Amino acid sequence: MAIENKVPGKDVLLSDLTDKFPLVAKQSHDHVSKFTISGVEFGGDLVPVFAGPNMVESEDLINQIACDVKASGAHFLRGGAFKPLSFPYRSEKYNETRHAGLQWMFDAGKAAGIPIITEIMDQRLVETIAEVADIIQIGSRNMQNYPLLTECAKTGKPIMLKRHYGASLRDWLGAAEYLMVEGNKNIILCERGMSIPHTHRETSRFSLDLQVIPAAKELTHLPIVTDPSHATFWNPWVKSMSLASVAAGADGVMLEVHPDPKNAAVDPLQPVNFAEFKDIIVAMDAVANSIGRRVL
Amino acid sequence: MAIENKVPGKDVLLSDLTDKFPLVAKQSHDHVSKFTISGVEFGGDLVPVFAGPNMVESEDLINQIACDVKASGAHFLRGGAFKPLSFPYRSEKYNETRHAGLQWMFDAGKAAGIPIITEIMDQRLVETIAEVADIIQIGSRNMQNYPLLTECAKTGKPIMLKRHYGASLRDWLGAAEYLMVEGNKNIILCERGMSIPHTHRETSRFSLDLQVIPAAKELTHLPIVTDPSHATFWNPWVKSMSLASVAAGADGVMLEVHPDPKNAAVDPLQPVNFAEFKDIIVAMDAVANSIGRRVL
Amino acid sequence: MAIENKVPGKDVLLSDLTDKFPLVAKQSHDHVSKFTISGVEFGGDLVPVFAGPNMVESEDLINQIACDVKASGAHFLRGGAFKPLSFPYRSEKYNETRHAGLQWMFDAGKAAGIPIITEIMDQRLVETIAEVADIIQIGSRNMQNYPLLTECAKTGKPIMLKRHYGASLRDWLGAAEYLMVEGNKNIILCERGMSIPHTHRETSRFSLDLQVIPAAKELTHLPIVTDPSHATFWNPWVKSMSLASVAAGADGVMLEVHPDPKNAAVDPLQPVNFAEFKDIIVAMDAVANSIGRRVL
Amino acid sequence: MAIENKVPGKDVLLSDLTDKFPLVAKQSHDHVSKFTISGVEFGGDLVPVFAGPNMVESEDLINQIACDVKASGAHFLRGGAFKPLSFPYRSEKYNETRHAGLQWMFDAGKAAGIPIITEIMDQRLVETIAEVADIIQIGSRNMQNYPLLTECAKTGKPIMLKRHYGASLRDWLGAAEYLMVEGNKNIILCERGMSIPHTHRETSRFSLDLQVIPAAKELTHLPIVTDPSHATFWNPWVKSMSLASVAAGADGVMLEVHPDPKNAAVDPLQPVNFAEFKDIIVAMDAVANSIGRRVL
Repeated sequence: MAIENKVPGKDVLLSDLTDKFPLVAKQSHDHVSKFTISGVEFGGDLVPVFAGPNMVESEDLINQIACDVKASGAHFLRGGAFKPLSFPYRSEKYNETRHAGLQWMFDAGKAAGIPIITEIMDQRLVETIAEVADIIQIGSRNMQNYPLLTECAKTGKPIMLKRHYGASLRDWLGAAEYLMVEGNKNIILCERGMSIPHTHRETSRFSLDLQVIPAAKELTHLPIVTDPSHATFWNPWVKSMSLASVAAGADGVMLEVHPDPKNAAVDPLQPVNFAEFKDIIVAMDAVANSIGRRVL
Repeated sequence: MAIENKVPGKDVLLSDLTDKFPLVAKQSHDHVSKFTISGVEFGGDLVPVFAGPNMVESEDLINQIACDVKASGAHFLRGGAFKPLSFPYRSEKYNETRHAGLQWMFDAGKAAGIPIITEIMDQRLVETIAEVADIIQIGSRNMQNYPLLTECAKTGKPIMLKRHYGASLRDWLGAAEYLMVEGNKNIILCERGMSIPHTHRETSRFSLDLQVIPAAKELTHLPIVTDPSHATFWNPWVKSMSLASVAAGADGVMLEVHPDPKNAAVDPLQPVNFAEFKDIIVAMDAVANSIGRRVL
Repeated sequence: MAIENKVPGKDVLLSDLTDKFPLVAKQSHDHVSKFTISGVEFGGDLVPVFAGPNMVESEDLINQIACDVKASGAHFLRGGAFKPLSFPYRSEKYNETRHAGLQWMFDAGKAAGIPIITEIMDQRLVETIAEVADIIQIGSRNMQNYPLLTECAKTGKPIMLKRHYGASLRDWLGAAEYLMVEGNKNIILCERGMSIPHTHRETSRFSLDLQVIPAAKELTHLPIVTDPSHATFWNPWVKSMSLASVAAGADGVMLEVHPDPKNAAVDPLQPVNFAEFKDIIVAMDAVANSIGRRVL
Repeated sequence: MAIENKVPGKDVLLSDLTDKFPLVAKQSHDHVSKFTISGVEFGGDLVPVFAGPNMVESEDLINQIACDVKASGAHFLRGGAFKPLSFPYRSEKYNETRHAGLQWMFDAGKAAGIPIITEIMDQRLVETIAEVADIIQIGSRNMQNYPLLTECAKTGKPIMLKRHYGASLRDWLGAAEYLMVEGNKNIILCERGMSIPHTHRETSRFSLDLQVIPAAKELTHLPIVTDPSHATFWNPWVKSMSLASVAAGADGVMLEVHPDPKNAAVDPLQPVNFAEFKDIIVAMDAVANSIGRRVL
């Protein structure tokens, strides 16, 4: 047909692209990365839980949360000191805490005996954060900030790479290859919700993409965790999406926990409180057990 | 600000729209519809499983599948006799079977002692299908074919309403209201994958939207099931999405089962075989047990 | 690589599928359908305009609009008598007018000397509408209601096939093939907005997909028109999207016109008034002239 | 209703958020930013054209292109020296040119008498690029790399902010506010295609969102240009999307031009050749004239 010659080469499957991300790609059907971070094993039977506030609001708050989530069984304390916000104007509280928050979090983790993960958003702070954090988190917005990825990877610290809310699996795995090419093997992928909520006209701006779990595991040996709090943006949906994540094969779950969600400094609709967290982690453990894994 | 007056009334939340679907909407926080179809309870602890081939290819095949899925614990035999295909040209096989398939399916269900569900796509066949089927399935493409919905609802037969692969929750619940307004209370919703696969450039054209389960349950008392086979379009992802559906709170799961998937007449990449089905239904039961429900 | 064998056949380009829609597909690079409906030529230099109200509210209103849009240069009077609404409850006004509206519209078109296009949504009304309408409109929601498509096509009447707001180009062209396979050659495609507004959190639920114009024209010889009113859902964006449609190569533009938009019975945010319509059609003509076509 | 209290505050319209981006927001209905960069006026009747190769492949090539696009009427020479690629592995050619390319481009622009725009992707190169470029381009992937935005803005150089292919209008305007809050007023927005091609299963990974032009102009005074080359990813669609951009009200158009597209080092399917560029810029001028603007 005459139009044939106007059509370019066929679109390729991701599996055809594994030479573009050779370190991230599986080498065999049952190839799974296993590594241990601060005593917590990834890629095995355990499904680690990352819990904590969206923002490190105060020293007291982060201490309280660290103790509580540790007592409930969380494996990592999460919390944002330096956070990329969609608009440049912040409260005084935010500006104060971003400078002190990292230290508060470090101290709180140490006191409670729980390792910490926190986000980086500025190349100039790579060393500062690498000194303090057990895992460096690359946020959604910086997934394709390649110089930042490279500098973080070079520190040798474990890295959690969140997927951009508009990025394909292809681009996500490409970004992960930027990390691995620096010789860093302790890379964790994190799905945090896509920007096309099929439930639109509702509260959520994002939709948790659980189908990406089997899709990613078909191609890569890296562990993949989910962040139901950011994806749902809505407390009442967090539990079911956490259980579904575990059942779908997620290798970890990240949850926002706050003692008083309504008064959280940022995104007050999404955190769960201490009692809700306890309930969810126990329920996740039951689901994990049903598929031969464990949370607690 | 001067532009203010160019902006229309605020967009509304779905919860503001419950007067548009008063019969479908929950009347209280814990309002859940319970009803029994051919001895199978919906809306309770049981998570019923619908299993069978995409297309009723032959009398032998549907008999074989009916016996097998029944033996493995399925609650309903699914199968397409009259199927809407995206293009008008079909094999001879298809044209023959669509006329006989309905009867074969009815007989197979009867012989194996399993109720049946099949799709309707033509207003003129409402009576024919209502006589044979235990549940009438409205497919994705006809979700907003309101005259068809109305005629099906009037038969009094239970109805499964699949979500269009591009429809919002709002439009889906509106379509369900068209069914309930005719006095029909035995309505089951079915999520079958959305047309925006975040895993794009991969094999799948659709993406299972599990977040719609808690979103729908916040608004409606109707049971909601999922169809991981059509959503993933890809056998290796079916199991994890089935388990995730149960964990997310789905009130049923529909699976395509074929003794020899590679040689299935339609969509050969998505069915599971008998051994895989047995494995999945047992695994779904374990996950269901972990959240206080059961499949078997 | 071991995972290779888990991957199915490559996804295919639409151009590989032209054997699935052989009548809709171009036979050569410059193959373009030309036909004349009620004296208006499609597929040539003219870019016909379809104008009128969303709903035929009253006899007076449709007469007034018919005269006005005809005077401004519109080629077809559009208007909904039988309209699929997302929820089953309607005003008294709607219920009355749907039965009388068709006749009012026929009379108004005749009196003003302008051919009419109106939507069908029920198989049982095919003959009724075919008798009255110059073009039968298949709405977005019924794009894949294949029995309806077939019955409409059999009447021999020209048909406008709107794209479902969640449908791929592939599925749209497949639906058009259902029309052409019945021997009907006067088929017009209409893009009316997709359900993924990239401008989300704004007023619009849909987004006009203008890139589909060159994409469709690469594959099919059929004319393609756009409906900026439904796509934008917002009066202030209608003009720019109308001009962009013409510049993108659209073979027609459909616009909602109402003498008093704020008091329109349905979707009051989207229609333009008479003065705005006059301004837009003149501006579209200027843009059309700049690319060697014409509207007036 | 009992569920009411589970529902959070209503989602807000973007127009409610103008206090989050007060500098980017319009102050009145007809507020439009006008500024001049290297003698080229933005925000007025002129629709400037940015043309050049995806990658600065060699000194000869960029010289040849600079002369040709200048002769055809382009206002800016575009070209990538430092380019973010989705995968970390590059050809030798790429690695060589990225270091020399910036200088080649600067020299080529000077020799041909055409100002230049080039992308930045590393905070450490802000000064280097600010010295050379007339406009600094922030690419799609770095739209929310806020420290990079801040540093670029502080240089006082004009900035083109491309929209992330998955970002909402809200997030895009928020990113622009990060630039303006540093006192930089010469900000240009650029739409380059969204990651949800409604034409899926075709060659394109992106879809040009023209509806965002009126949507953005309702809220912001900043000029907005489009990039049909990256959006369509496919040469045969570039012309119609360029003309549609102008008709939709775009304040500029960016086009990839290469003397021998098939042998372009990157993305060989999307550039136009010199003759095609000449044809497109003349056609854009005609469309611009039809709406009271001009390209040439």
